[in-house]
Parts: sequence; structure tokens; C-alpha cells
Amino acid sequence: MIKIAILGGSGYTAVELLKILLRHPEAEVVAVTSRQEETPLVADLHPVLTGRIDLRCEPFDPDRLVKKGVQCAFGCLPHGASMSLLPRLLDRGVRVIDLSADYRLRDPNVYAQWYGESHEDLAHLAQAVYGLPEVYGDEIPTAPLIANPGCYPQTAILGLAPLVAGRFIDLRSIIIDAKSGVSGAGRTPKLTTHFPECNESVSAYGVGQHRHTPEIEQVLSDLAGEPVEVIFTPHLIPMDRGIFSTLYATPLRSVTQADLLAVYRDYYAGAPFVRVVDRLPATKDTTGTNFLDLTVRVVRGRVLVLACEDNLVRGASGVAVQNFNRMYGFDERTALL
Amino acid sequence: MIKIAILGGSGYTAVELLKILLRHPEAEVVAVTSRQEETPLVADLHPVLTGRIDLRCEPFDPDRLVKKGVQCAFGCLPHGASMSLLPRLLDRGVRVIDLSADYRLRDPNVYAQWYGESHEDLAHLAQAVYGLPEVYGDEIPTAPLIANPGCYPQTAILGLAPLVAGRFIDLRSIIIDAKSGVSGAGRTPKLTTHFPECNESVSAYGVGQHRHTPEIEQVLSDLAGEPVEVIFTPHLIPMDRGIFSTLYATPLRSVTQADLLAVYRDYYAGAPFVRVVDRLPATKDTTGTNFLDLTVRVVRGRVLVLACEDNLVRGASGVAVQNFNRMYGFDERTALL
Amino acid sequence: MIKIAILGGSGYTAVELLKILLRHPEAEVVAVTSRQEETPLVADLHPVLTGRIDLRCEPFDPDRLVKKGVQCAFGCLPHGASMSLLPRLLDRGVRVIDLSADYRLRDPNVYAQWYGESHEDLAHLAQAVYGLPEVYGDEIPTAPLIANPGCYPQTAILGLAPLVAGRFIDLRSIIIDAKSGVSGAGRTPKLTTHFPECNESVSAYGVGQHRHTPEIEQVLSDLAGEPVEVIFTPHLIPMDRGIFSTLYATPLRSVTQADLLAVYRDYYAGAPFVRVVDRLPATKDTTGTNFLDLTVRVVRGRVLVLACEDNLVRGASGVAVQNFNRMYGFDERTALL
Amino acid sequence: MIKIAILGGSGYTAVELLKILLRHPEAEVVAVTSRQEETPLVADLHPVLTGRIDLRCEPFDPDRLVKKGVQCAFGCLPHGASMSLLPRLLDRGVRVIDLSADYRLRDPNVYAQWYGESHEDLAHLAQAVYGLPEVYGDEIPTAPLIANPGCYPQTAILGLAPLVAGRFIDLRSIIIDAKSGVSGAGRTPKLTTHFPECNESVSAYGVGQHRHTPEIEQVLSDLAGEPVEVIFTPHLIPMDRGIFSTLYATPLRSVTQADLLAVYRDYYAGAPFVRVVDRLPATKDTTGTNFLDLTVRVVRGRVLVLACEDNLVRGASGVAVQNFNRMYGFDERTALL
Repeated sequence: MIKIAILGGSGYTAVELLKILLRHPEAEVVAVTSRQEETPLVADLHPVLTGRIDLRCEPFDPDRLVKKGVQCAFGCLPHGASMSLLPRLLDRGVRVIDLSADYRLRDPNVYAQWYGESHEDLAHLAQAVYGLPEVYGDEIPTAPLIANPGCYPQTAILGLAPLVAGRFIDLRSIIIDAKSGVSGAGRTPKLTTHFPECNESVSAYGVGQHRHTPEIEQVLSDLAGEPVEVIFTPHLIPMDRGIFSTLYATPLRSVTQADLLAVYRDYYAGAPFVRVVDRLPATKDTTGTNFLDLTVRVVRGRVLVLACEDNLVRGASGVAVQNFNRMYGFDERTALL
Repeated sequence: MIKIAILGGSGYTAVELLKILLRHPEAEVVAVTSRQEETPLVADLHPVLTGRIDLRCEPFDPDRLVKKGVQCAFGCLPHGASMSLLPRLLDRGVRVIDLSADYRLRDPNVYAQWYGESHEDLAHLAQAVYGLPEVYGDEIPTAPLIANPGCYPQTAILGLAPLVAGRFIDLRSIIIDAKSGVSGAGRTPKLTTHFPECNESVSAYGVGQHRHTPEIEQVLSDLAGEPVEVIFTPHLIPMDRGIFSTLYATPLRSVTQADLLAVYRDYYAGAPFVRVVDRLPATKDTTGTNFLDLTVRVVRGRVLVLACEDNLVRGASGVAVQNFNRMYGFDERTALL
Repeated sequence: MIKIAILGGSGYTAVELLKILLRHPEAEVVAVTSRQEETPLVADLHPVLTGRIDLRCEPFDPDRLVKKGVQCAFGCLPHGASMSLLPRLLDRGVRVIDLSADYRLRDPNVYAQWYGESHEDLAHLAQAVYGLPEVYGDEIPTAPLIANPGCYPQTAILGLAPLVAGRFIDLRSIIIDAKSGVSGAGRTPKLTTHFPECNESVSAYGVGQHRHTPEIEQVLSDLAGEPVEVIFTPHLIPMDRGIFSTLYATPLRSVTQADLLAVYRDYYAGAPFVRVVDRLPATKDTTGTNFLDLTVRVVRGRVLVLACEDNLVRGASGVAVQNFNRMYGFDERTALL
Repeated sequence: MIKIAILGGSGYTAVELLKILLRHPEAEVVAVTSRQEETPLVADLHPVLTGRIDLRCEPFDPDRLVKKGVQCAFGCLPHGASMSLLPRLLDRGVRVIDLSADYRLRDPNVYAQWYGESHEDLAHLAQAVYGLPEVYGDEIPTAPLIANPGCYPQTAILGLAPLVAGRFIDLRSIIIDAKSGVSGAGRTPKLTTHFPECNESVSAYGVGQHRHTPEIEQVLSDLAGEPVEVIFTPHLIPMDRGIFSTLYATPLRSVTQADLLAVYRDYYAGAPFVRVVDRLPATKDTTGTNFLDLTVRVVRGRVLVLACEDNLVRGASGVAVQNFNRMYGFDERTALL
């Protein structure tokens, strides 16, 4: 039984983590921290958990967490806050799965460029493993710090990995047109996520400027062995959850759909949470699950990949537990089916 | 051509008013005020109006409004702000249609009790006419100040008026179970109206405490000629617009559905915006219109009325223009069909 | 390990059952039947189950099911079909949890009156236990046939049970105003559940005629020890799942909210899936769970109960598994947390 | 006053047409036809029109329509039915605005290839004008037959026209990623448009096979003066109305965003219903209007255009009235603001 702390317990990734971990036979959540003044009951912050958890939120106090026996912490803090607080746990020997963006970008200059501030924890950045099990799975068991991947990047990276790794496509031709439910914007009320504003509407946002861009490029570049640059356009969709990414690329050689489906099936043969399907996928078939569904099509000489997931489970808290399972040697699927 | 000012131009009732008034052949909007520091273009606050209106928001300045020739002002201010600012226009001879609650309750003690502050403009309160054309239609043409009715109250009052006026029901038996779309909560982002919180959910709110209660009771008491007290339970529904009220009452004598439908048809024979229908109504059939649809049923000796409307049009800005039409002697339906 | 068959595998209650049973350590689904001509893979009918289940649908053949070792069958058939097919399994010693309405109404005349056809299996009807664990829990362990309760009735019955059993209210005063998500209407496309028709709309349906009425009355009458008649008005809400029932009744004696909350807490002390809460509940907090959340209010001398649940889990498939757990002596919560 | 018939009155484009034409000072709808057995009141098919229109549906009978004085017919029939019935009106001198696809594709072989049947009215096909006022505006006043454009094509064509006409982009690089509300699928219930299936979900459909593809290519080829081929991927979005198209192309020469915005503003200077905006547009700002909003961005050397509209108004019935206005010499905006 691994003793766990959730850091930053008031948002959507925290409640999703709690729902999963409460079903996990080898995990025990012993602390939930919050930056709020008061120390509300976790079940008052998240009424869905009423009767499921008795913990009260507590301030972030690394010594207290260690005294409680915390072995692993899941960070649900905003970027910036993560790199400011996590070192104090890491230095006390607590392993961390960080759901923020702070440790995802290997190059601190890229971080500074996209996040507008200098990285202040280069020491741990160097030790962080990007927690995408299907790509960096071997490094996860021994990692002290997992940089849990972003929601959009997982659909883009896993959707393109077989094409990039297998050199099927022109690396300068990649377009990622992504559609996300509103929970991806977090739990802080804003005009753009006020119901009467975003309901019954579709819009694009962050065109050419979304911070998930360098994260996608870093991993695709790893897979390609050379720099990859993408066009990434996120859209806001009037639904709670789900990301659907439509990926476009130009093949370098003539390929058939059947060939590519076989390539994908082969590439993900050992990945229990990637489902290569014949049909066109729909986000609804992944809602509440840790599955990422995808298929591939060849249209007029172009390759299209259609990939989707639940942005809060597979896109955040589910893959975090998948990483946790790998870190501690549990079956990768524990608590996730 | 009547020169018009919209006071408090940033919310949903303001944009709805503008959409209607831009189609009105006898209305010219010459000013839109806003309490914001900046003076943004109205079309920037409400992109749906792009290319339709060139006005820029301006601070509330009664002399300037008078100098612009404003004859009639629509108040889209929050309660409290209305009674603080409107006297300065009324005293300059500008007629006002106030969409806030400030002038709806005849008794200032009732106002104080439900709104938690004393009424500070008793002089104009005494002159205000409650702007429900189907009930107080005769008083509207000469009124200096119209207290435009609340969204919920219209469905409850018009749904019950024939029963109350005709003494068909026990006045102590009335239950109003109302369901509203989220735009009824206004445009200010809050956690309860944050998309991932209220989407895919139904909840009740303000149980026993909603401020529309005394407004409903005041008008039903007028119609009854004696005090009426109601149970009013509002619910939040995951849709942009629409109010559906299910009204329950105990009849005083045996009645049939056919009888009651005839009573309703007769009562609303001269009301162009109340549609008494045989079918069970749906809010969707009223969306974007000034119609209030209703029907009546007798179930196991109880009378049920089902009434619905678009909360922003019939429930606010549409009926405001209906009042405007009556005030200035235009066909009641102008710009509303 | 209990071997299970799902009868009628193409609808929403079937897929929900499968999702729960796939997590159940003591249940093994060995057959899924369907009346369709073809025998599609279950995962093709329900893509969310891709990779989770290899079964193919098969025609309903009781001998074959017995040969497969089926001990317990969950019936997800329409009413009428249930009483036609289930006897053939019951007579072969298979225990049945029937999610249709066929065995819920003790009196076949009431069945005939509300369902428009004679009951054709009086023998088993006499043995059926109404599967509401919080009311008939003691009879479930030995029942050969469970009539799984309707979705609406659970919110109404559990919402009112403490008031009725404790004689707090006038039994002729009960009004049930219920709001349901669209999945309650089943998976067969109809104009009323076509997205552009029911989205962004609220309407009432089956006013005074909904078939869940006698079911509610039967159980409340059991609890009261005398006949109870209710007014039940269902509404269609633009969301996937969730039922919210607002219950109104007139108290027989003066009561306070605090008293009643204590009565409810006491009444449900041993019920792990009924959560008596202080706050006003919301369907969202029950989505995907087997919890029924409720609270009670006293408003102007009337009692209001606000009760909600997920109509597919607690309202159908979840409570079915709760019944299954009780039938076979497993912890009532198994696979349901 | 032009006398009008609506052919095929039961669907969404028909009701939208009626809503607009009831506001048109120069249009009188004198007949609505329907293929249904009965001849229901139009207001019973479309309850939103209750009290607005007294017509009853009638069978399609060209002589009767002519006898009623019908001068212009709007065809809301399915493809196939249009080319079968419309010749009988055209040959009687009635001008037709056809909202189906039957007369949109100039080349009958292309029609046969995409629609799976031979074109059976080549005579009128040769006379048809593609009713996109911003491109073929000059031909509309004298056209006997208008092929009203598809909903998706308008966003794609008007989004790309300035780039294609001005030779700014590589004509083989065009990708159209389009997102549509569910009303675009029509009013016939299907599993894919059943609320609980498509709500809270995004999916792609018709990938590489959507019938709007050749229509887009025909017009872009006209504008380019050479064949254009596009990749077009439509997606289904859980909302009633709205199309949002994200268009990608590779520029032939270095361009700035400011330059391109100026090009777009210039190109659409005379088009009252195309709004070139600086901000990123949202479908909600076009809902219920005839406006098509668009903007252009340069991202990493690629050109992106974001274009949106209400699929039922601008995408179908609104542009049909815009065409009607041009055909009869009315101000293009009549009844559309």
C-alpha cells in the first residue's frame, strides 16, 4: 500500500485522481493539500465524493506530509507553483507525478519562451521523465519525478508516433486540428467558460500560440530523431469532456489505409490503453475511461489520423495513475478498467 | 422615431434589447451606458452586433443623455443601482423601462425584506407601473416608469391568472416548480454557471428564498383581491434560454380540462403574445420569440398549468419592447414578430 | 464466481450493466442475447467496450444459456417481452433480475390498466420481489425473481419513504415534479429525442399518464399501510443522464427542517447508497455512481424533498447489481464504488 | 408582393425560411407542400409558428400552385426529389430557389459519381446559377433557377476565395476541417443524431467522402481558373446550429496577417453579410443571423482562415432569401437583419 498525497485538491484533475485512487487496492490517499485559507473537507469541495473520503484539505507542508508517510505525491498545481513547491518534496525523497507543465519541456529556454518565466528548478528538470507510457515506458519505473503529459499532446503524439517513428510522412507537413471539451480549461470561472457564452458555440483559441505546441514537438522530435514543427489549432467544444484530434500529414511514399492500420496495430500491440479501431472514433466511447481510440485514413494522397480520449482521465489523471502503476510495479491497468 | 438609451449595456438583456430595437422602425438607440472604466464599442462587448451598431459605451451622465434627445431609457442595471441612478433621468422627464427589480414591489417593506436593503426612491416607486401588459395594460400608456416584470413571475402569473381571477382554485394551494436556462443567471462568471459545473446537471436553488416570490404574490393578490402565498422552487437547467413552469393548484370546484382551456382562451383572447395551446408546450417553441405558451391539465382532481417562454425575450427584453410599444402608441407587436 | 447472462444487450441499461459487471470480482458475463437478426460483437454494439469483452450477441435460447452454466440473468428487454421470455429461464432454475416493468406491479389489473395488455405470467409475478434494497432488502436474498425498480420511482419512493413511514405528511398531498435526462427514453431514435428537437428545450410529457405512477403508489402504500395516490409530472431535460425529483407534501404536524434531516439520517443509516446531504443536491454529483442524494426543506409550512440520481446507474443497472450482491451474499457495494 | 411556395415543408430549412419570409414585406407564402399522407397545419409541424401562419400542407401539384399565383418556389426537398419535381414548376414559368444539391454541380458526371445516380434534368441544370451572392451575384437577378449553396461549402468557399482568387496559396495544399451542429443532419431521427449518442461527443464522419467536396472544388476552381482539389473533413458537434471551418493552406509567397486581413476586407467590401473580424470568431456570434464571420491568421508560414456561420440561416434559408432579394431587385438585406 503506497501512501499518497494530492497537492492542489480543488480542481478537476484532483477529483478525477481521487475517484480512481479510491478504487486502487495498493494506494491510500493520506493527504490533500490546498492553497485556500480554510481547510474544507475534500467532500465539500467535490460533493461527488460525499461519503467516500473523510480527509480535510491541509496547507502544503512537506515535513508534515513526510511525517504522514507520504511516498508519492500527485501534483495538481498550476504551472509555476509546481516548480516552486515540488523540490521540497523531491528533496525529502518523495516521488512525484506532476500534472502541471513545469517539468515537461527539457529545454528551459523553450519553457521560458512559451510560459513567459524562467525555469527555477533546473536540477529536478534534468531528472524528470515525460510520463507517456507508450513512448517512455522504460524510464518510468525508476523515475523520481514524472512530468505527466498534457491532454492535447497525448492525442497528437500517440496519433502520429507510428508515422513519425516509421518515417512515413513529411515532418514539415503536420497539422493538428484539435477539439476539446470545456473541463480542459480548468475549474476557475471565466467569461469564455461561462455556460451561456460557450454553450451552443464552437470557436478556436490560442491559434499558433498554445503552450502544448512545444511539448508535442519535443516528443515527435525524439521519435523522428530530428526537429519536428507542427501547426496546432485547439478549439473549444460545448461538452464537459473529451478531446478529438484530427491530424493531417503528407506521406513520403505511397501507402494504403490497410497498410497503415497494420502499422498502428503493430506499434501499439503492447499498449493496453491505445485502441486502434477500424471505425471512425468518437470521444463518447472514451468518456470516463483511460483509453485513447484512434484510426487512420488515406484521403486523396494525404494521411489523416483521428484520435480521441477523455481529457481528464487519459488526458490527465488516468495516465497519471498508469504512470504510478509502472513506477511501483503494479499491473499497468490497476484501477483503470 | 423615439430616441432611446440603454443603461448598463454589457449584459444579456441589453444585447437582446439591441437586437430587437435595431429592427424597430420607430426606435433609435442613441446611447448605451456602462459602468466600465473604458468605453468599448458596443459591438466589441457583443460581437453578434458587429456591423450593426457603431455606438461606443459611455458613462451614465443624465445631462448628456438629455442633450442627446433621449426620450426613453431601458434600465439594464442591477437592482440597487437602478433606484440610485434612475431618479436622475426620471426627474429630467425621461420615461424609463426598468428591467431590474427595484420598482416592482409596491411595498418598500417587502423590498427591504427580500432584497436586504431599504428602498431609497419611494417617490418614483409610487408612480411605477408593473409592466405586465396582459394584466396592467391600461396603465402602461401613461406611465412615466415601467417596472419590467421578472422572467419567472411572468410564467407563474400568466399561467395562474385565469384560475386566480376566476376563483377556480384554493389560493393557498399554489406550487410553482420552475426550470430555467442558465442565461437567467446573468453574464457574470460564477462557479455555479461555469460550464463543466452546470452542464449535464439539474439542481434546485434559492429554495424558499428566491426574490421573485413576492413579485408573483403581489400580482396574484391583485388578481384575487386577497393575499396569495405561493411555494416557488426554481431549478437550473443546462440550456442557454427558456423557462418552463409547472404550476399545481387544487380546484375549489369540479372542473374539466376542456372547460379550463376555454377559460384560458377567453382570458387571453386579446393578448397577441400568449398562446394557449392544446399540446404540452416546450421552451424550444418559444426560443427567440416574445410568445408565452401555456396549456392546462386536470390530473386526479388537481389543476396543472404548463407555461413556458424565452427568459431573455418574453421574460425580459421582449416584454420591455412590448411595454415600449404600448407607452408610445405603436402596435404592440412592432419589432416582436 | 456467478455466471451471468444479459438478455437484450443493445440498449443503455445493458451497456451500463456490462461496465459494472466487468469490474465485479464475483461475476462473469458468459452470454449476451439480442433479438437482432445478426449476431454482432457486443463491442460493436457498444464501442465503449472495445477491447473489454469478446462475446458475440446470441439469440435468446434458454437451454443454451443453461448449458453455458448461467445462474443469474439480467433482463434488459422491453416490457411485454420480459413476461413472455423470462418464465422459460425461471422454470429452468435461473434467477432473474428483470429491469423491465413486467413484474413490478403486484396487481395484474393495475398492470393491464397502465400497460394496456393483460399480464401473462401470474405465477412468477406472485414470486417477484420489488428490488428496492432500502425498502424490501430482507426479501431479496431468497428471491427467484427481482423486479428491478424504475428510475423515477426510486427518487420518489426513497425521497418520501421517511415521511410516509413516519406519518409526517398528508398522504393525499404528494406532488412529484421530476426532471430526467434523455437516456431515460431508451436508445431507439424518435423525433422527441432527436438532438435538435430536445436540446436547448424543456418540456413535460406523459402528464397524468406516466406508467411509473402506479409503481410509486404501490410502494408508498406499503410504507403507509393504506392507499397513497400521487401527482407525478415527468419532464425531459437536455442532458444525457440524471433524474432530479422535487417532492412536495403537506405536513400533518409542525416540523422543522433540522428534525426532518435527523429523521432522514436515521432512516437511511444503514443504506450505503443513500446520501442525506445538507446542501441542495445536483444530479451531477451522482453521475456515474450508484448514490441517490437527497435533502429535505420546510418552506412556508410545506415539506420539500429534493432527490437525485443517475438514471442509468442507481436508476437501473447499478441498483440491479446491488440486488445481485444481496441475492448472492456479496458486500452490497461490490463493484459499485 | 411576390407569391411564394415552400416545397417540402416539414424540415428545418422550411421552418427557417418561413420565419424569415413572415418578416419580409414583399413576400407572401401562399402554399407549403409536403409528401406526407395527411395535410397537417404548418403550425402543427412547427409549433414555433403557432399563431403566425394558417396554411395547411398540401400535396405537390404544379397546376394548383400556378393557379394560386405562385411566382417563386423554395425547394426544401431531398436531392433526387428536387430534380424529379422542380422541372414541372420551372416549365410553368415559376422561378425556383432549390436548397437541395441537385443543381449545384455543373458536370452531371460529377453528380453521378458523388450522389450515386444519374442526373435526370440536364436541361435545367444548364440554366442553374450557383446561389452564392458574393461570387455569382451578377447572374442571380436573371436566373430562372438558383442552386442554393450547401452549408459547409459557404464557409470553405468564402473563407478561401480571396486567397484563391488572389493566387496567394498553393492550390494543392488546402485542408478544410469543419465542425457542424446537429441540425445540419436534418430532421429525420437516426441513431447518430439520437441525443444520448451525439450529445457530449465529437466525431468525424464522411471522411474523404462528403458530398460537399465537389461543390467546394467547383467554385474554387472557377475562382482559380484551374482545377482545385481539397481535403474536407466534417465533424459532428453537440450543438443545435453553427458551422465552424478551420482552413489551412500553404502560401506561395511571404505574407503577413495584416496584409491578408486587408485583402479580405477589400474583397468583401461590398458584401453586407460577410464580416471580416480581427478577433477569432465563434459560431455563437452568428447564430440566428445571415452573417458569415471570418478572420485570417499566419502561423509558422502557413495561412489559417477561421470562418463560421449559422448553418440553417446563412448556410441555407437565409442565403436563399438573400438570393430571392437579388432575383427580385429588393435590397439584399431585406428581412435578414
